[in-house]
Amino acid sequence: MFQRHLETLPREIIEKVQLERLKRTIRRIKERNRIYWEKIGKVVPEDVKSLDDLKRLPFLTKDDLRKGYPFGFACGEQKDFVRFHMSSGTTGTPVVNPYTSADVDQWGEIMARCLAAAGLTFSDVLQITPSFGLFNGGFGFHYGAEKIGCFVVPIGPGRTLLQLKFFKDFNTTALAGIASYPLRIIEVAKEEGFDFSETSLKVGIFGAEVWSEEMRRYIEKEMGIEAFDIIGMTETGGVGLGIECNYHNGIHVWEDHYIVEIIDPETGYVLPDGEEGEMVVTTLTREGLPLIRYRTRDITRIVSRERCECGRTHLKVARIKGRTDDMLKVKGVCFYPRQVEEIVMKYPEILPDYQIIIGKVEGKDTIKLIIESEKQDEYLKERIEEEIYSTLGLHIKVTLKKKGEIPRAPGKAVRVKKEI
Amino acid sequence: MFQRHLETLPREIIEKVQLERLKRTIRRIKERNRIYWEKIGKVVPEDVKSLDDLKRLPFLTKDDLRKGYPFGFACGEQKDFVRFHMSSGTTGTPVVNPYTSADVDQWGEIMARCLAAAGLTFSDVLQITPSFGLFNGGFGFHYGAEKIGCFVVPIGPGRTLLQLKFFKDFNTTALAGIASYPLRIIEVAKEEGFDFSETSLKVGIFGAEVWSEEMRRYIEKEMGIEAFDIIGMTETGGVGLGIECNYHNGIHVWEDHYIVEIIDPETGYVLPDGEEGEMVVTTLTREGLPLIRYRTRDITRIVSRERCECGRTHLKVARIKGRTDDMLKVKGVCFYPRQVEEIVMKYPEILPDYQIIIGKVEGKDTIKLIIESEKQDEYLKERIEEEIYSTLGLHIKVTLKKKGEIPRAPGKAVRVKKEI
Repeated sequence: MFQRHLETLPREIIEKVQLERLKRTIRRIKERNRIYWEKIGKVVPEDVKSLDDLKRLPFLTKDDLRKGYPFGFACGEQKDFVRFHMSSGTTGTPVVNPYTSADVDQWGEIMARCLAAAGLTFSDVLQITPSFGLFNGGFGFHYGAEKIGCFVVPIGPGRTLLQLKFFKDFNTTALAGIASYPLRIIEVAKEEGFDFSETSLKVGIFGAEVWSEEMRRYIEKEMGIEAFDIIGMTETGGVGLGIECNYHNGIHVWEDHYIVEIIDPETGYVLPDGEEGEMVVTTLTREGLPLIRYRTRDITRIVSRERCECGRTHLKVARIKGRTDDMLKVKGVCFYPRQVEEIVMKYPEILPDYQIIIGKVEGKDTIKLIIESEKQDEYLKERIEEEIYSTLGLHIKVTLKKKGEIPRAPGKAVRVKKEI
Repeated sequence: MFQRHLETLPREIIEKVQLERLKRTIRRIKERNRIYWEKIGKVVPEDVKSLDDLKRLPFLTKDDLRKGYPFGFACGEQKDFVRFHMSSGTTGTPVVNPYTSADVDQWGEIMARCLAAAGLTFSDVLQITPSFGLFNGGFGFHYGAEKIGCFVVPIGPGRTLLQLKFFKDFNTTALAGIASYPLRIIEVAKEEGFDFSETSLKVGIFGAEVWSEEMRRYIEKEMGIEAFDIIGMTETGGVGLGIECNYHNGIHVWEDHYIVEIIDPETGYVLPDGEEGEMVVTTLTREGLPLIRYRTRDITRIVSRERCECGRTHLKVARIKGRTDDMLKVKGVCFYPRQVEEIVMKYPEILPDYQIIIGKVEGKDTIKLIIESEKQDEYLKERIEEEIYSTLGLHIKVTLKKKGEIPRAPGKAVRVKKEI
């Protein structure tokens, strides 16, 4: 562990720390951003007597943050900040998160914990493939790696042949990437006859996209690594909100820095542990853009608040199942793309790139699933259609394509296309 | 100044520090890399009694470093390093420079001095447009900015419309870039009717390419900024080897970290101050890849070793005129592309993108110059041909094209094309 003492704090201490820091965060907002303070109902630190009082505060949404572009919810003036990261803005105005130097330090700390949870030490070699720049991925791994002192290969995205070459040239032991990028690496490796068993790779840390257990098994088998799911987003201060430990039975969220709640996305009520809903995040140590009850739109549940077998006491949430705005409703059936991925990836002939195409014909929903397969087999196609129907209760027309026929996106993979 | 005490050291102290650090560097090579030590003639620290003794050591070339890919000249093992940067490798095997954490710190220090020399303080907003990754540009400015505590806009290269938007959204005061990138920004600004006088921009810091005084005046006039020339390369530990101060009469090289010599590229003899030749760099504080008499191939001369009007005592070299391998020899005449640039940029109708095309027809050299012009005027064309002839003694056929007709390269500008 990077900070054993903090990562194994007893629950009652965690909660004490959370309450104290929640008050401090509210005080910061009150003192530094009048509009934000009004938005949270002009609550004062003294109103918050227990963590339970958090439930009475209003939610903050991505739309709120967008409307505030660039610094509407920032706590401080630009001169107090040292940098910012920004959401991609592909679905509207981007969200800007300004960092004080303490925020940069906080980010490095949680990322160092994440890298250590994935087994990395100063003697590892980390190849960082998310991009460095406005996107938070590259710099998140950069700051974490600086704290643990491992050797960084700062290659960034793309140049997949060079990625393969560097695995060998620099004895890379750990790969960091957007979750769909290892698929591309595996694909190019196969074309090139590249043998992963000749590398020193042992760990992959992947995030920024929803990816299934079946995808994990595929990546682990093909690359000969152990794959860790990492979460975090621009709004929370970047990648590093939480990560799996080596028991892979949930994602530890660093509770001395964040409070997570799971709510019913319809009613907004907090759900009991174990029930699936939308994850809401309150930051406890962020200065530039503190969040009070931010609706992440990620669907998950709390798996456990008990001490984990790894020794960490910070609660675990399930791997993200989808996002509230990813949820598809077709012919009256609600489901997430990941559920389809889980089904098709069970078939060894099926390759990991797929696309769900949703349309409307004469007012009626249509849905097609395009998958790449090593075999073009009518029987296989029918079996998959049947299994999707029996699992989701939905008739989906499946089209099998040959390897490489689905276009690859340069950044995050495009899994769903709406042709409406 | 970032470090007034160190930047204004009296010359005799600088030289004492240099001698001490030169010995330490030789000791490091001796103890950590047998092959490198043999390459420098198995010199021992005790052999170096004065800085003059440096002249007796052999040169190190880019080819040497290339042959050593990746760690042949590294002093230490990979576990001692925390990252590396790499030359682009477009002209052959790339050069890898591995950094210890002390090297990262050294880089941040010299870059912070550079930013301060360009007038930046913690209250500035620095938009970093060189790419972050294997190329050293982005991270060099990143580390320097961290030390001075200014606000960073970590946008990286391209997305020129977004660059313009960010100038306003984040009140950018300083722009860092590859020297040809401001030309692209100016071009897009003109297309968009973007008015630089509505921004807070006041400083530009440009490097990684040879750019003329005429180009500087164009950028300064169009953007309403003061432009500073910065030097440095992968081999020396990245951008930051030196920068102009606000007197713009030479580039200060940080002499407590580097020794520069100017040699005759043919004979290898050290030239007297003021004479033009190839710059040779010896590093004094780099650990991962210390350099002894590295031939940079950059053509310059020593302008002064006296205390500058700015107060700094570190010597000044002239702005880089060209590189030994950039020098063109056509019809028996030797010249650098920058000399052509200087001539054409004097004409207000001429736009800053140009290309020199060199070929051979029936064994004879041919040379064409393609420039973009706001006017397609036969008389203008002839005037330029005449001025080139009277300056360089060379007949060059000039072709005037319309704005945008010369293809723009995504990274460094392509100024010379050889069609042989």
